[in-house]
Amino acid sequence: MSEVVTLAHGAGGKASRRLVEDLFLDELRNPLLEPLSDAALLSANGTRIALTTDAYVVRPLVFPGGDIGELAVNGTVNDLAVSGAHPLALTAGFVIEEGFPLDELRALAHSAARAASAAGVAVAAGDTKVVERGAADGLYVTTAGVGLLDPRVDLSPTRVRPGDVVLVSGSIAEHGIAVMLARGDLRLELDVESDTAPVHREADALCALGRQLRWMRDPTRGGLATTLNELVAGCDASVVLSESTIPVREDVRAACELLGIDPLYVANEGKLVAIVAPRAADSALRALGPDAAVIGEVRADDVPMVLCETPFGGSRIVDMLVGDPLPRIC
Amino acid sequence: MSEVVTLAHGAGGKASRRLVEDLFLDELRNPLLEPLSDAALLSANGTRIALTTDAYVVRPLVFPGGDIGELAVNGTVNDLAVSGAHPLALTAGFVIEEGFPLDELRALAHSAARAASAAGVAVAAGDTKVVERGAADGLYVTTAGVGLLDPRVDLSPTRVRPGDVVLVSGSIAEHGIAVMLARGDLRLELDVESDTAPVHREADALCALGRQLRWMRDPTRGGLATTLNELVAGCDASVVLSESTIPVREDVRAACELLGIDPLYVANEGKLVAIVAPRAADSALRALGPDAAVIGEVRADDVPMVLCETPFGGSRIVDMLVGDPLPRIC
Repeated sequence: MSEVVTLAHGAGGKASRRLVEDLFLDELRNPLLEPLSDAALLSANGTRIALTTDAYVVRPLVFPGGDIGELAVNGTVNDLAVSGAHPLALTAGFVIEEGFPLDELRALAHSAARAASAAGVAVAAGDTKVVERGAADGLYVTTAGVGLLDPRVDLSPTRVRPGDVVLVSGSIAEHGIAVMLARGDLRLELDVESDTAPVHREADALCALGRQLRWMRDPTRGGLATTLNELVAGCDASVVLSESTIPVREDVRAACELLGIDPLYVANEGKLVAIVAPRAADSALRALGPDAAVIGEVRADDVPMVLCETPFGGSRIVDMLVGDPLPRIC
Repeated sequence: MSEVVTLAHGAGGKASRRLVEDLFLDELRNPLLEPLSDAALLSANGTRIALTTDAYVVRPLVFPGGDIGELAVNGTVNDLAVSGAHPLALTAGFVIEEGFPLDELRALAHSAARAASAAGVAVAAGDTKVVERGAADGLYVTTAGVGLLDPRVDLSPTRVRPGDVVLVSGSIAEHGIAVMLARGDLRLELDVESDTAPVHREADALCALGRQLRWMRDPTRGGLATTLNELVAGCDASVVLSESTIPVREDVRAACELLGIDPLYVANEGKLVAIVAPRAADSALRALGPDAAVIGEVRADDVPMVLCETPFGGSRIVDMLVGDPLPRIC
């Protein structure tokens, strides 16, 4: 581990994982935190609840398809939803740079409120701090959320079995590319919008599969590749993706090629990836709607890893994200 | 309201209140958020829980008596405790500036872990984001917490009655003064330490008073004066403090005089203020321990306000904090 924090530590890939495991988990270790999943599962007087948090530092604050207010709400709703929990209430903590325009702040609060309303959840508590000019880049938001665990499901990497099917709820890589394009550094003439959206309805529909639903996640920072690598580390089997089945919009694919970035590593903010038992695959596809796809399967393997089979019959290893090709994407 | 966010908006006083009411509450309005108390109270499948969040931007990150890691844990534990809730679990979101030393980060995580352990609660979920050099001042932490409501109590400003007694759990103004002195701008030779500590044991002891306990708060940003003004706004009666009974350490009082700041406006991070029925005053004092004091009473008044009676027989109006004499204190 290097001696100072680097941007790669915040990218959601290998360095992030190392920082979390070697420093935060090492210091804060407890049974609730230890699974390092999207939400901690705990019992409140016998009621099973999920608890999660995410900090948002996306730049710019407003981008095609969304803004930091909406993103911060959807991200936390989604972390609860993919943990098999029905969102009950959110909190939002704002760190604001002195001089930030109040009308922009109001627009972001409005956007957060609209997203919360769309997800059927309230922002129940908040806090606001102000730092001097130059001590923040406009605004940072940290949301937390509490949800009620769905008793129908038991989601865990350890429940994933060889033969299980990998599904994604729609086309990938839109959020990260939209944010990169919004920065204007690239001078590409593409109209890519962020996919920021709540996935609680899709997650709820999958929960109806009961124990045939093994595991869900929302592939944000580090993209589908990193999320599936985290799964593989916990389930002791390989995930084999079929590249041609992974939905990617043409303009997003073109932007990825121009940027030299694999869409598998680009953040999504309104998609979920799920693993289900083979006989539940058709029901899962129907539950997720017309944009969903089966993109791979789980295979027994001596050395668990994520593989991607190309349309030409070859296959490549898909490792976790290394470095930070897309800083401050969420 | 001015057109941009100012430091006063983050100070916890009048401008903060206006920002929260006129902008955040206006946009995010819902019955859980509306009371604007330290924690939102909600029901999870019939189990009553409290939910709270606080962002921490204190400068410097380490100060006599504590650091941002400990402060962020104690602050959220305390917001739950004074809401009559037993802390169940916390979350912590870190926004870190690129280049931040990893050993300092580890020390702050260690400190947060120690504080959590002392309060009998786990940091169950976390998130880490990294921003470029210059886009943050070292590190910001936002904690959230969930707690189980104590069924013995029903705490609300509306339950406060004329004749009720005001207590504080110990001497005031230490945290704010310690942080100001730690900045070194003042060149005062005083050894004031922050009072950062969890108050959950004191709060729990007061909960044993049942419905004779009317209301509790931890007087942080804006100090005792601002906290009591917020109470008065919600209870339609006046609070009359007796200045000579308010515990202030001599060195803290001296620093306040040199700085020209009333200790009533200085942040505390390990104290609680409580209102109890008159016949419960002695039990409350015993429950809070030897540093506690009765500092005033609630009086019927046509124009509810906070008053402070001086040792010379006069009295003055104690308004909410205006402006920001002590920026980035928590």
